Amino acid sequence: MQKEMLHFIKMHGCGNDYIYLPCFDQKLTNIDKLAYQLSDRHKGIGGDGIVCIEKSDVADARMRMFNADGSEGAMCGNAIRCVGKYVYEHHICDKQDITIETKSGIKKLHLHIQDQQVTSVTVEMGKPSFEAEKIPVISTKKIILDEPMKIQNETYTVSCVSMGNPHAIIFMHQDIHDLPLKKIGPFFEYHTSFPNRINTEFVQIIDDHTICMRVWERGSGETQACGTGACAVVAAAVRTHRLEKNKEIEVRLTGGRLYITDTSEGMLMRGDCVEVFEGKMEVTV
Amino acid sequence: MQKEMLHFIKMHGCGNDYIYLPCFDQKLTNIDKLAYQLSDRHKGIGGDGIVCIEKSDVADARMRMFNADGSEGAMCGNAIRCVGKYVYEHHICDKQDITIETKSGIKKLHLHIQDQQVTSVTVEMGKPSFEAEKIPVISTKKIILDEPMKIQNETYTVSCVSMGNPHAIIFMHQDIHDLPLKKIGPFFEYHTSFPNRINTEFVQIIDDHTICMRVWERGSGETQACGTGACAVVAAAVRTHRLEKNKEIEVRLTGGRLYITDTSEGMLMRGDCVEVFEGKMEVTV
Repeated sequence: MQKEMLHFIKMHGCGNDYIYLPCFDQKLTNIDKLAYQLSDRHKGIGGDGIVCIEKSDVADARMRMFNADGSEGAMCGNAIRCVGKYVYEHHICDKQDITIETKSGIKKLHLHIQDQQVTSVTVEMGKPSFEAEKIPVISTKKIILDEPMKIQNETYTVSCVSMGNPHAIIFMHQDIHDLPLKKIGPFFEYHTSFPNRINTEFVQIIDDHTICMRVWERGSGETQACGTGACAVVAAAVRTHRLEKNKEIEVRLTGGRLYITDTSEGMLMRGDCVEVFEGKMEVTV
Repeated sequence: MQKEMLHFIKMHGCGNDYIYLPCFDQKLTNIDKLAYQLSDRHKGIGGDGIVCIEKSDVADARMRMFNADGSEGAMCGNAIRCVGKYVYEHHICDKQDITIETKSGIKKLHLHIQDQQVTSVTVEMGKPSFEAEKIPVISTKKIILDEPMKIQNETYTVSCVSMGNPHAIIFMHQDIHDLPLKKIGPFFEYHTSFPNRINTEFVQIIDDHTICMRVWERGSGETQACGTGACAVVAAAVRTHRLEKNKEIEVRLTGGRLYITDTSEGMLMRGDCVEVFEGKMEVTV
């Protein structure tokens, strides 16, 4: 048992907040326990998890992320923007187009810079997949787009997309702010059609370049923002001719706004990255 | 609009966490807005509120506290312990018995010190009042101790105490961990018998020096700990001969443990005070 001083930065993208630990100089052990301890919002620093920013042999930097429960995450579209901000502003990399190594591959970022500060970041989020088997969704259909699905006692019109993780999308005409997500979210998450459970997005199209959504994430419940969810929603909306391809769509989430473009090379996501504070904490390692 | 660097320390007592701002050197303006902004657990520092530690003309230091919604609070038994820790460890005061000026008067603290660190603090919390009119409770009785009260469709045996703020206490035989507080708490809080609303404690006596409690605070819902609540509970238990006077009682709360003694000079509360981290944040003032 040894005491060590941990230096960190707290940042958020659309309210999705992580504790960022630069690991170029400081070495961390027992990261799973540390993530659990630091993420506690009353007795720790508080956050959705921790993100370690490290040296990479194959990209400009590497991010490793750990959820609040200590489990390792693969990638988070809101977190990687903050990693881009850190890497540029701390002179680890002096370019506007950078690459970040993640557990789900190398991601390309484009930094939007004003007065030497990164104000927003565009992330190449990859191509959506609509194949039911890959998402996975158990169904007699190969692709699920605007299909009626009975969830508990109601019939919803559902579209399913994979952005590396599974999404079920419901386009609605009613105001989504009134939806009792706590009640209906779990019925989607644990429905027998979704063997790996599912993230569910409830969406309202405002006009040809604006949509509103709320998200129920598997394992987390309702969250302020979900980057892959926003991409999945726009991909499904374009595929069902609700929105146009190659047009930037403003997606309004509880925690902020994301700007998504469905291109033939894949989904582009632009969004904010905000440094809130920096700090130091004595931890026992 | 000007940018300024704010220095703060995050501390908690029994999980009741505040952002502590030393105001000996730094001056703060718009504290209500600042409290609201800093307390946000996703886009701010995160906390139950902020506490300014200032110079006092009548005590060793002065604390001013602001809740997460920006409203000014009078006093908090869990926060004042952390103020005691700060004042000693930052050499503002070199004594073990100190005084802190609060909006509800000057409070006396006794610091428990190990290796120059304050590990726990005893606070003189004042005398309980059982007069229904002063609490206030609307009743034909002058004192409410173990009185049946119909709340929604159930009859509870209720005792009422004021520790400066109003408390309703229910001693139970069942395991309090299973109670649906979210459902029943509001029925107490908004019951017509309590014109200023009420904090409600659900209590189980374990043995002659240990009790377990959960608290529903007016305006906040279930909280991890409530210092005045723990005092009110022990005062009611002693008055109804469930526990002995002048004996330190261990009170187990969701966020930690408090040690309460009912003496003829008033209630003594001993508890932890934990520094979690220190930080700096750029704010616009």
